[in-house]
Amino acid sequence: MTGAMVTGAPETTGYGGTLAAEAARFAALGWMRGTSGNLSVVTGRDPVRLLVTASGLDKGELRPGDMVLVDEEGTAVPGATAAGKPSAEAALHARVVRLTGAGAVVHVHTVASVAMGRRRPGGIAFRDLEMLKGLGRSAHDEEVVLPVIRNSQDMSVLGDRLEAALDPGVPAVVVAGHGLYAWGADLREARRHTEVVEWLLELQLAEERGR
Amino acid sequence: MTGAMVTGAPETTGYGGTLAAEAARFAALGWMRGTSGNLSVVTGRDPVRLLVTASGLDKGELRPGDMVLVDEEGTAVPGATAAGKPSAEAALHARVVRLTGAGAVVHVHTVASVAMGRRRPGGIAFRDLEMLKGLGRSAHDEEVVLPVIRNSQDMSVLGDRLEAALDPGVPAVVVAGHGLYAWGADLREARRHTEVVEWLLELQLAEERGR
Amino acid sequence: MTGAMVTGAPETTGYGGTLAAEAARFAALGWMRGTSGNLSVVTGRDPVRLLVTASGLDKGELRPGDMVLVDEEGTAVPGATAAGKPSAEAALHARVVRLTGAGAVVHVHTVASVAMGRRRPGGIAFRDLEMLKGLGRSAHDEEVVLPVIRNSQDMSVLGDRLEAALDPGVPAVVVAGHGLYAWGADLREARRHTEVVEWLLELQLAEERGR
Amino acid sequence: MTGAMVTGAPETTGYGGTLAAEAARFAALGWMRGTSGNLSVVTGRDPVRLLVTASGLDKGELRPGDMVLVDEEGTAVPGATAAGKPSAEAALHARVVRLTGAGAVVHVHTVASVAMGRRRPGGIAFRDLEMLKGLGRSAHDEEVVLPVIRNSQDMSVLGDRLEAALDPGVPAVVVAGHGLYAWGADLREARRHTEVVEWLLELQLAEERGR
Repeated sequence: MTGAMVTGAPETTGYGGTLAAEAARFAALGWMRGTSGNLSVVTGRDPVRLLVTASGLDKGELRPGDMVLVDEEGTAVPGATAAGKPSAEAALHARVVRLTGAGAVVHVHTVASVAMGRRRPGGIAFRDLEMLKGLGRSAHDEEVVLPVIRNSQDMSVLGDRLEAALDPGVPAVVVAGHGLYAWGADLREARRHTEVVEWLLELQLAEERGR
Repeated sequence: MTGAMVTGAPETTGYGGTLAAEAARFAALGWMRGTSGNLSVVTGRDPVRLLVTASGLDKGELRPGDMVLVDEEGTAVPGATAAGKPSAEAALHARVVRLTGAGAVVHVHTVASVAMGRRRPGGIAFRDLEMLKGLGRSAHDEEVVLPVIRNSQDMSVLGDRLEAALDPGVPAVVVAGHGLYAWGADLREARRHTEVVEWLLELQLAEERGR
Repeated sequence: MTGAMVTGAPETTGYGGTLAAEAARFAALGWMRGTSGNLSVVTGRDPVRLLVTASGLDKGELRPGDMVLVDEEGTAVPGATAAGKPSAEAALHARVVRLTGAGAVVHVHTVASVAMGRRRPGGIAFRDLEMLKGLGRSAHDEEVVLPVIRNSQDMSVLGDRLEAALDPGVPAVVVAGHGLYAWGADLREARRHTEVVEWLLELQLAEERGR
Repeated sequence: MTGAMVTGAPETTGYGGTLAAEAARFAALGWMRGTSGNLSVVTGRDPVRLLVTASGLDKGELRPGDMVLVDEEGTAVPGATAAGKPSAEAALHARVVRLTGAGAVVHVHTVASVAMGRRRPGGIAFRDLEMLKGLGRSAHDEEVVLPVIRNSQDMSVLGDRLEAALDPGVPAVVVAGHGLYAWGADLREARRHTEVVEWLLELQLAEERGR
């Protein structure tokens, strides 16, 4: 494999098994229906390398080899993997990594993120919730706004929107009519951020319904 | 077994195990409650043969032998299977196969499909949703209408309604007060289409509630 | 064991394992939270004997021996079982068996049954739904009313209300503020009726919310 | 280990495995998303000792050793455990134990408890529900009010609020914008109380939506 490895990181094969297990976990929650969504983990920083789940496969049944190694543009690294082409969205994963220094990125299609993204195109505000501490924010007297960006099939356009909307204190973005991106220093932290943001969105949706 | 097999297709026994596993997967999602729904897979094209889940059994506990082989009318092929009678709906599965060339058909009873079918008897419109790409449609600037047809116990009447309502660009139909039919080139694609359409319906139902 | 056995019926120990597995299945659906609900199966008809799940235990973790054998009044048969006292509701199970000839009774505490029972104290009407066929009724042009009775801690009062409200064509009753009773010729049919009625209630609740 | 053990209680290692399994069970219900919540069990009374789940870990994947032994103030007992620091909330667990004599405390972050706590800052009233018997209360003609207290990051402030709001007949408290605390004589009873209260909150939220 090309590039310097993150200290202590396992080889690509090991990453593949970890990504497959993590995808199956999110799929079991119903957040990756219809083969939607994708996960990535950074396997090298110089040059940047991400292992990304291959597109078109059921995310509950991935095997360790169903991953694609991509560079900092999200382009497949020639010869490195045999699992077909990466999702076009691999480019957005790579952009998130470059912008935030994240070590792992989770993209899921949840009903709550799409429903709330359509209702709050300017961003979704939360405050006075203990769960905000899971994002490293305060549970009191502070408004946290989850950015919402318009969808696009052009990953450079989508990436520019993400960069413009990014709040350094919020490790997630909702793409309207599309789904949720969340990230973290590693897959474990990216999972926590994903679960926290989805919980906040489900709460908000429940509160909207009751009004 | 009679009829030419699809290239590379396993024998009927293998199909039975695959159908049983697929049914158990949908049952675990709560989409086949009370023994409802049925799945089929095309095992031959000349003449047409479908293996269909037998009626009256819990769809979460089917065994590979709990299937019936039917012809292009949905009638059981004499001597081919021992699992009792096919559901009357086998005739609709066969009609879908003849009309669309599908290789597999999924019929499930989900709350969202029935609730939305009752609200939108003229069809359920979606637009500007990334998830529409899972049906081979555009995520932008295009309205996709999921057809809704009235229910009937006469499969030829129901089949005529399905044929009249069919949109070649939408691999699914909602039967009002009944449930959802979706199909694809094989069971894997039929699953993807089923999950995508159900997700769209759940989103729509969530948005209806919040208005 | 006293009494004639149902033809082909396994011994009590076998019933215990079957009841435990069935209870675990309903518990996994979230319909028996907080140790609530109970299941019974008829093990003899002359005299009437029912094996009922013991009260106070987590319904997802019953062992085959966690059952009590009761007579046609719901009273524990002396010496027959060691699993402590039956739920007071065993008397209502026995009453359902005497009134309907059922071979198995399911009682669960679902949110949908309690919410709908409170909204429709006079009964919950359904029509034009394919799912009604799962109760042996027509999917068209017929109104099916699920009876709702007021709750009581006196099982003879509750039994009288059930007897007065019983519709011979509907194998289920909602107890307002309490939960759902459903029954069938055997555990398999009682499961199907339970799932069908719960599905109907969840649909109705979803439709109420959206109005 | 210091302190007298509860009669018949297993050693700390055994408690760790039990706590880990119990946490995994609540996590599977979606009530401990994003590493939120914590569980504790009393391992000694004189002096008071609680084993508490460690903070920051996925509650679905705890190992028996991922627990911290704390004293009656919720402070880690030096040398007793190696699993890092306890959650600050361990102090509230200890306070609940001192106030109520509970043998186990469950704290979960459920959407229903947070949504209802925000709607009913003065307490959430229930009546005429069979499920109330799971809290040792009457199913008829009695109003049971689940206390709601304001959130705080200062555990002594939060504990004072809990003490002031505590109803001796209700083994649970909602912390507004935060989650649910429930307790019992042992983990089994604490689980039952947690499930009963959460069921009541889900019912109430469903009824709010339909109005």
